[in-house]
Amino acid sequence: MASDDLVKRKNDHLDIVLDARRADAPTATGFADYRFAHCALPQLHLDDIDLSTRLFHKPLSAPFLISSMTGGAARAKTINRHLAEAAQHLGIALAIGSQRIALQSGNDHGLTRELRQVAPDIPLLGNIGAGQLREREGLDWARRAVEMIEADALIVHINPLQEAVQGGGDRDWRGVRQAIGALVKVLEVPVVVKEVGAGISPAIARALMEEGVSVIDVAGAGGTSWAAVEAERATSETQRKIAMAFAGWGIPTAQAIQTVRQALPDTPLIASGGIRDGVDAAKAIRLGADLVGQAAAVLHSATASSQAVIEHFETVIQQLRIACFCTGSLDLAALRQAPLIE
Amino acid sequence: MASDDLVKRKNDHLDIVLDARRADAPTATGFADYRFAHCALPQLHLDDIDLSTRLFHKPLSAPFLISSMTGGAARAKTINRHLAEAAQHLGIALAIGSQRIALQSGNDHGLTRELRQVAPDIPLLGNIGAGQLREREGLDWARRAVEMIEADALIVHINPLQEAVQGGGDRDWRGVRQAIGALVKVLEVPVVVKEVGAGISPAIARALMEEGVSVIDVAGAGGTSWAAVEAERATSETQRKIAMAFAGWGIPTAQAIQTVRQALPDTPLIASGGIRDGVDAAKAIRLGADLVGQAAAVLHSATASSQAVIEHFETVIQQLRIACFCTGSLDLAALRQAPLIE
Amino acid sequence: MASDDLVKRKNDHLDIVLDARRADAPTATGFADYRFAHCALPQLHLDDIDLSTRLFHKPLSAPFLISSMTGGAARAKTINRHLAEAAQHLGIALAIGSQRIALQSGNDHGLTRELRQVAPDIPLLGNIGAGQLREREGLDWARRAVEMIEADALIVHINPLQEAVQGGGDRDWRGVRQAIGALVKVLEVPVVVKEVGAGISPAIARALMEEGVSVIDVAGAGGTSWAAVEAERATSETQRKIAMAFAGWGIPTAQAIQTVRQALPDTPLIASGGIRDGVDAAKAIRLGADLVGQAAAVLHSATASSQAVIEHFETVIQQLRIACFCTGSLDLAALRQAPLIE
Amino acid sequence: MASDDLVKRKNDHLDIVLDARRADAPTATGFADYRFAHCALPQLHLDDIDLSTRLFHKPLSAPFLISSMTGGAARAKTINRHLAEAAQHLGIALAIGSQRIALQSGNDHGLTRELRQVAPDIPLLGNIGAGQLREREGLDWARRAVEMIEADALIVHINPLQEAVQGGGDRDWRGVRQAIGALVKVLEVPVVVKEVGAGISPAIARALMEEGVSVIDVAGAGGTSWAAVEAERATSETQRKIAMAFAGWGIPTAQAIQTVRQALPDTPLIASGGIRDGVDAAKAIRLGADLVGQAAAVLHSATASSQAVIEHFETVIQQLRIACFCTGSLDLAALRQAPLIE
Ligand SMILES: Cc1cc2nc3c(=O)[nH]c(=O)nc-3n(C[C@H](O)[C@H](O)[C@H](O)COP(=O)(O)O)c2cc1C
Ligand SMILES: Cc1cc2nc3c(=O)[nH]c(=O)nc-3n(C[C@H](O)[C@H](O)[C@H](O)COP(=O)(O)O)c2cc1C
Ligand SMILES: Cc1cc2nc3c(=O)[nH]c(=O)nc-3n(C[C@H](O)[C@H](O)[C@H](O)COP(=O)(O)O)c2cc1C
Ligand SMILES: Cc1cc2nc3c(=O)[nH]c(=O)nc-3n(C[C@H](O)[C@H](O)[C@H](O)COP(=O)(O)O)c2cc1C
Repeated sequence: MASDDLVKRKNDHLDIVLDARRADAPTATGFADYRFAHCALPQLHLDDIDLSTRLFHKPLSAPFLISSMTGGAARAKTINRHLAEAAQHLGIALAIGSQRIALQSGNDHGLTRELRQVAPDIPLLGNIGAGQLREREGLDWARRAVEMIEADALIVHINPLQEAVQGGGDRDWRGVRQAIGALVKVLEVPVVVKEVGAGISPAIARALMEEGVSVIDVAGAGGTSWAAVEAERATSETQRKIAMAFAGWGIPTAQAIQTVRQALPDTPLIASGGIRDGVDAAKAIRLGADLVGQAAAVLHSATASSQAVIEHFETVIQQLRIACFCTGSLDLAALRQAPLIE
Repeated sequence: MASDDLVKRKNDHLDIVLDARRADAPTATGFADYRFAHCALPQLHLDDIDLSTRLFHKPLSAPFLISSMTGGAARAKTINRHLAEAAQHLGIALAIGSQRIALQSGNDHGLTRELRQVAPDIPLLGNIGAGQLREREGLDWARRAVEMIEADALIVHINPLQEAVQGGGDRDWRGVRQAIGALVKVLEVPVVVKEVGAGISPAIARALMEEGVSVIDVAGAGGTSWAAVEAERATSETQRKIAMAFAGWGIPTAQAIQTVRQALPDTPLIASGGIRDGVDAAKAIRLGADLVGQAAAVLHSATASSQAVIEHFETVIQQLRIACFCTGSLDLAALRQAPLIE
Repeated sequence: MASDDLVKRKNDHLDIVLDARRADAPTATGFADYRFAHCALPQLHLDDIDLSTRLFHKPLSAPFLISSMTGGAARAKTINRHLAEAAQHLGIALAIGSQRIALQSGNDHGLTRELRQVAPDIPLLGNIGAGQLREREGLDWARRAVEMIEADALIVHINPLQEAVQGGGDRDWRGVRQAIGALVKVLEVPVVVKEVGAGISPAIARALMEEGVSVIDVAGAGGTSWAAVEAERATSETQRKIAMAFAGWGIPTAQAIQTVRQALPDTPLIASGGIRDGVDAAKAIRLGADLVGQAAAVLHSATASSQAVIEHFETVIQQLRIACFCTGSLDLAALRQAPLIE
Repeated sequence: MASDDLVKRKNDHLDIVLDARRADAPTATGFADYRFAHCALPQLHLDDIDLSTRLFHKPLSAPFLISSMTGGAARAKTINRHLAEAAQHLGIALAIGSQRIALQSGNDHGLTRELRQVAPDIPLLGNIGAGQLREREGLDWARRAVEMIEADALIVHINPLQEAVQGGGDRDWRGVRQAIGALVKVLEVPVVVKEVGAGISPAIARALMEEGVSVIDVAGAGGTSWAAVEAERATSETQRKIAMAFAGWGIPTAQAIQTVRQALPDTPLIASGGIRDGVDAAKAIRLGADLVGQAAAVLHSATASSQAVIEHFETVIQQLRIACFCTGSLDLAALRQAPLIE
């Protein structure tokens, strides 16, 4: 695909997701089915609650990750700068959007060492599509994706549904698993594999572990629906209808987390897909997540300013802190044991 | 019933069903209760997915059947031509609507060998009401119904609810089972039995198997509701009220398929009744269907052009293909094993 | 209570119930939870279906009872005549409304032998409130209630909720059970006991059997809500609020029938309370009812003409007949065995 | 916090709660899941039903408590007078709102012995926040809170969620449990501990019992949501968003009562949080409550007149009486055994 088309597509994505309802999945994340047993006597100071954790040997002040988002040219550059400044300020992890355009064309969209200089202390994650790994330059691109931003890890996104419903999407998924396995063997940083909103099942999670993947991000259903987004972008009625039938497809995020955790008790897990606030985040952690990712929910702030992103996450972090407080949990380990009701 | 009345009735049916909400059942098909476990790593090429199957020793490119629809005179002729051209082009099966008018009056509504010539390679199914089989000319009509279009099989529809709520409907269903049994013995082509939107239970399916029927189409509740259609056509308030009480009557399609399949592990089964898209089709197949039929959903296109019908089914087939892709299923046999969640 | 007040109250009741939504219970009857397994091959003639049954040694053409309704003066007379003419024409049972005014004042509201002459062949049931039985003239009134219309049986209604929320209602229910027991011993016709829309539990049903009662009408929740009716009639905001809290009170009709039948396998049972049509009636019979009663649903027709009442019940009876047809049931005994799904 | 700010805050609370929907929890109390088996033959006189009970050795005519509500200055004084007059007239218990302002500033808002003189015979309960108990003057304040109104008991409210989402709220909850334990040891009257709308779990209830607390008021979710109230009061968008994520937080009242009762069979329990009427009250008692409290539901009347409060409770008490009547319960002990259905 020509780079110009790619840029146009990414710009469309931004516009559709920013116009909230157009990208919403007609599926629930499943978090509403869970409720914490309120702790009316927390024997702690709210400010003492320790949300800190580690990712790739770097400390995080709270278990959050800004999930990968790409956008076209100019906007992407601005968005990435806002996100990087905010992540550095907040001490949370940042996953940049797909580096495909930057790798394949001259235009780097701000995905350079300068980004790393803006955010020197946080885990910074590169992003590449699984399909590209199979190409001749695949491993080379992966290495460059890491170097380009001095990434701590590389996210490989697997998005078969999105590719299938997207005009010109990649329909050949043979060899993808093997390509991930090959990458893991040679890359110097850990590999994270994520979906983009349809979820990862226990069976796929196990397969990825067998390939040596370090971290899994379930990116489940209930938030941004790429089938809905691609339906909005469709250039023909046929294409639109094909995509719309899948707007509700996928494994709800709460269920993906819970079942993958059950199957893989020790794998580092990221929960994303429709996380609205810190109460959802608390439930995701309670159900088995180590880290919680947000994409669409932070996009609006990301287009505005780094300050807006900071405020967004301060809000979400404070909500998570209060959820810990009201379950009597001094830290995330305690939250993981907090009793649920019903 | 005079042939003119029959034609008028069939024209009314078309108009009511085309005006969508008037024919909708206040009952769910039940497919929404099922959800596939998304396969984020399908190890296949979308275009390699093999949806082909066979019906009556003829190959089908995809497991679809255009379900029987009759209409009055001129329109029926046009509709049938569109459907036949499309089915031939697509390589899917076509069931024509009831041949009663064509058999009992001079007017054939285009249900002739010309239709077969338009669609030489596909399974073409004739259609007759079960009640007519008991008449003196019953077996003769059945044979002529097959010959008239060189049908590969004859569908016998059993629609006691529709007859009961319809002014002048056939209320005598004694001997119908025996007449089906007698037909099976003498007809040279296989006999398919279907309902028209109220579903077939395991007990009835077993009885039909005992009579030697080859294929069952459950035609369950959740799509076109004939009680609702007849209520719209009612000429008196009494008749309308009688019919409306049954608008929600019947066995939901998903449940009909699942329970009949459980009772009859080896019987060829068609799922129809409220199938909206290829995702519903995938679920129907997962629950036990061999073939999936659509009537109302294709009617609008059928009145327009064969191209419109082709586009309709290309959409549905592509959706089914993507559902296979996103469950990692290379063919229908694999789809039948795809894990469901919850 | 003065007779004038009683007449006024009864007139209010009619007006409120006629203005449908004002009397509706915010509770479901529970029939929607049940669904018949459709029989697509009924081996019978719709017209051969035998809905006949017997009540108090008299034949009924169908298992229906027009449930007790009182109204003030002139209207009551008209309503009763319409109902009696219709019941006689249809061959179904008629329960007249409370005979209290007729017994205690001069005005008989048409509840006389003339009524019986209009309907000589059907089971005609008198009606009296349980509370009145305890009064000095109690047994005398009961006997006169029967004689007045040559009733085949006497209904005793027990309505503690209605009395409790009604201005000037009877709040003393001591000795009511004993009074019913005493009545049963001396009355020459069978005694039926019914609620008026809050239902009868298995425990109460057993107690009534111990007192020698012949028939129970569960008159459950889901149809006319007397708490809602009395709230509409309330003369003070306090009274209105007290009543409204009970608009949803009671045992849903489907549940009352099922649990009482389970507790008392052989007791003649009438199902009433929110029966809308013949499909509800079929479900009530399937769950254990011998007879099905309707009050509010027939009131509108009753104010119009006997012809309107006839048409109403012809509709409901035809619906029940079709429900039998579509479950393959030749008679009510067969319907009681018809398979339910889910 | 300066006393003026406190007064302003309390005034805001009143306004927001009076404007009903603004304070409503998007959570159900859970009472709608329960339904009594109607008793159609109550062998008692409605007026004989004995709702009386005892609290702190004082008789109550009915098991009701006016739950704690504070308000700013002038209004609080009026409200408290209305409530005290009504409670005395009705013979029910009165819990006054937090005495913090009265204790820490000169202004007593009518929380003086005069209040006790208006209501000499009823259980009068003081109210203090758990956090204040830890301050140097804590025990002293507690004693003065009791003396100030000659209280029969002191309520200690524990409201960690409200404090956490409120600008300037108390975030340090260390030592609160111990402070309650210390208070219990020295205070001459019994100590009641309550939440304010998020509920008390069995684990917290057990901890409170270990500290020697006499009575627990679960104050569960489903009524006034303090997160929603504080969101309405928020001065920044961030604060508003933080609070709103918790509008649905907490243990539904019905569930809190049932699980705490199961864990502590003999502890005196108060049910509050979203009790709308006497039917809810009856269910709360059936599920294990000894007393039922209402705050928001009575606030409107409380601002009007003592007569309005009396009428409010006469309504609720009559509803509870009728619920006893229609379950055949002569007293609260019998109501606790009344059969539920489903
Ligand atoms: C505008 C936008 C662009 C995205 N681009 C990428 C991408 O380049 N690579 C990727 O792995 N995921 C991408 N995603 C997916 C997200 O990382 C995330 O998995 C998904 O949106 C679900 O999370 P959410 O519901 O919080 O949005 C994008 C999401 C959005 C909203
Ligand atoms: C306009 C129309 C005409 C129909 N005519 C026939 C018919 O002649 N014979 C028959 O067996 N079924 C007939 N059907 C029933 C369909 O074949 C099918 O069983 C039913 O409509 C349920 O499928 P659907 O929900 O996809 O419409 C007709 C349906 C429609 C909508
Ligand atoms: C207007 C009206 C008057 C009624 N009067 C009486 C009565 O006098 N005696 C009685 O036993 N029930 C009376 N009922 C109760 C009905 O017999 C029946 O039990 C109740 O309304 C539930 O049935 P439904 O939902 O079909 O209305 C009356 C009902 C209505 C609607
Ligand atoms: C306006 C208002 C003021 C309140 N002030 C207090 C208070 O000072 N102390 C306290 O313990 N609870 C206070 N509450 C909480 C109530 O006592 C009660 O626990 C809570 O509102 C749930 O009950 P409800 O749903 O009936 O309102 C207040 C409630 C309201 C509505």
